[in-house]
Amino acid sequence: MRALAMFPSERELRIVEMRAPTTVGPTEVMVRIREVGVCGTDREILELKHGAPPQGSERLVLGHEAFGEVVAIGPDVKSLHVGDLVALTVRRPCNVPTCAACRAGRQDFCTTGAFRECGILGADGFMTELVVEDEHYVVPVPKALEEVGVLVEPLSVASKAGEELDAILRRYPWEPTRMRALVLGAGPIGLLAAMMLVAREVDVVMYSLEPADSERARMVESFGGTYVSARDVQLDELPRRIGKTDLIFEAVGHSGVAFGSLAALAPNGICIFSGLPAGAGPTEVQLDGIMRNLVLQNQVVLGTVNAGRRAFAAAVRQLEQFETLFPEPLNGLITERVTLEQAPELLRHPRGIKQVVTFAT
Amino acid sequence: MRALAMFPSERELRIVEMRAPTTVGPTEVMVRIREVGVCGTDREILELKHGAPPQGSERLVLGHEAFGEVVAIGPDVKSLHVGDLVALTVRRPCNVPTCAACRAGRQDFCTTGAFRECGILGADGFMTELVVEDEHYVVPVPKALEEVGVLVEPLSVASKAGEELDAILRRYPWEPTRMRALVLGAGPIGLLAAMMLVAREVDVVMYSLEPADSERARMVESFGGTYVSARDVQLDELPRRIGKTDLIFEAVGHSGVAFGSLAALAPNGICIFSGLPAGAGPTEVQLDGIMRNLVLQNQVVLGTVNAGRRAFAAAVRQLEQFETLFPEPLNGLITERVTLEQAPELLRHPRGIKQVVTFAT
Repeated sequence: MRALAMFPSERELRIVEMRAPTTVGPTEVMVRIREVGVCGTDREILELKHGAPPQGSERLVLGHEAFGEVVAIGPDVKSLHVGDLVALTVRRPCNVPTCAACRAGRQDFCTTGAFRECGILGADGFMTELVVEDEHYVVPVPKALEEVGVLVEPLSVASKAGEELDAILRRYPWEPTRMRALVLGAGPIGLLAAMMLVAREVDVVMYSLEPADSERARMVESFGGTYVSARDVQLDELPRRIGKTDLIFEAVGHSGVAFGSLAALAPNGICIFSGLPAGAGPTEVQLDGIMRNLVLQNQVVLGTVNAGRRAFAAAVRQLEQFETLFPEPLNGLITERVTLEQAPELLRHPRGIKQVVTFAT
Repeated sequence: MRALAMFPSERELRIVEMRAPTTVGPTEVMVRIREVGVCGTDREILELKHGAPPQGSERLVLGHEAFGEVVAIGPDVKSLHVGDLVALTVRRPCNVPTCAACRAGRQDFCTTGAFRECGILGADGFMTELVVEDEHYVVPVPKALEEVGVLVEPLSVASKAGEELDAILRRYPWEPTRMRALVLGAGPIGLLAAMMLVAREVDVVMYSLEPADSERARMVESFGGTYVSARDVQLDELPRRIGKTDLIFEAVGHSGVAFGSLAALAPNGICIFSGLPAGAGPTEVQLDGIMRNLVLQNQVVLGTVNAGRRAFAAAVRQLEQFETLFPEPLNGLITERVTLEQAPELLRHPRGIKQVVTFAT
């Protein structure tokens, strides 16, 4: 079977031939991959900024946003059947006995850093025809989500952030009234997070680089958000233009924007950072003002990465909700589907919102 | 009766004569003040950096760390009796109907900013002989804590931080194992927070400016903490010297130190800011690195201010625990007691850890 693999030492991306798996262990399932989404992490791997092949291997099979169909199950598998549609979780536990997070099945909180991530770090990914995984890492997706099941993984990042948000909101003894949120960055994660918040009846403002008459701006408005272009409003003017916001969801990966946006945060506000900055160097910001607001207004800044099985399951439920509430913008997130042969070119020259590699069934 | 009052327009601090209260409303209690602690906020009021008199008044009675004895109660008072020792909460609700926090009795989370604070902002304080307050703002203190009851208010700030910490720790599905904490700043709040953490079986490192052979360093060691002087170890060397820490409690009010300390935060770590920076200007820090760690390690930064009635009650229970666990360092926190006549001089030239103004009984 074919797979798309990165060879870091050769700085080369190639379609390779691999032996297809033929058997499954007692608690394992075999998944025929249907679609794999492509994201910024894949491109970072290509640029050798991130990622590593499995130990002892010279190549890493790419692909961590996977959607497929169960084609075989082990005798002890309880949660899945042949024919089920599924999404695959990405992170695998570190197996270090002192890591309470991985021991509790929450490797998204791994404390040792010795976790592996399929298609990213130390474990092969899903951009191939067949994969075998323990059922614990395989999450069922209803047939009705066939067209958008590949979005479960990127949405799971927002779903985990939503779980964290709920945990922190519970620190107040009162019911939050209708909240206002600012989402930074109209990439796939930002757009999915904005949909999640709109579905939760939060008033959402999306702030991003694209012009106010762009396709993404129209998409945001079509699912009930308000779009503000960074071309029209400077970041430091934002609080004056849109008022204070109870929640900020950062999905741009720029520390100046991330910390700068805190000026728009309301009392008791929560700001979630989900983007990774490039690491360019020091940024000069008014840290005193940021700290003063954090303290005097009981604010929280929260970083979040990856997602566990529970967040994947939540993402599936949220996708169902999105299909009911705003099917058109949801389906509009997937702007391009290409074959495996076209994938190397796509990875090198990204375009549109979410690009997906499809495997003929 | 006498009171210590600040006259902002005259930039003057004076002992004034006031009419003593003679009656209490149905749910009010009259408290004879025994002791009032002095802190940095009082000094900021003297320097006109903070605070304001009650509306329509030209002077603000100072004092917000109050401890006293109930001398009269209204007919509907349920929680207190004459003779009870008590601490007084500081913040009063904003009474704006849209403020869910104040409506829920949690004015420490007031969303409008229209709250008042006794002795600080828009309401007279407790540095006088008799005060009358609704019983809701008056928290009983056991007789056994007579000598240290004046510490309830500063400890309540740490207690509230502890409540916030617990709420955020509950986001993990596993029991936290023995945690490590870094406390920044050996002032009264930092020392009380360190005691609170030691009492919770957290391993505490106190990092502060005082030398390693100072009285404060010895105090920290005497209640079970480890002291590291900023004279011996630079902030950026700290992670290498003490290892990563699960919790940071900031009580120095310096944004460079606060954000700089985040390099020492472990995966899933929580950093609590409680200090207010001077507002000097921009600070240059490696924001990219801070943001990267926040995201990749699921870290939380939390600001906290003031404390509600529940945190005051928790502070009382914690003081009882401290009296059992480490009575000597606890009592050692109060380094000086002066009369009201000596208070102006003390406020202008602070010394020691916690200074207290006593009223002859």
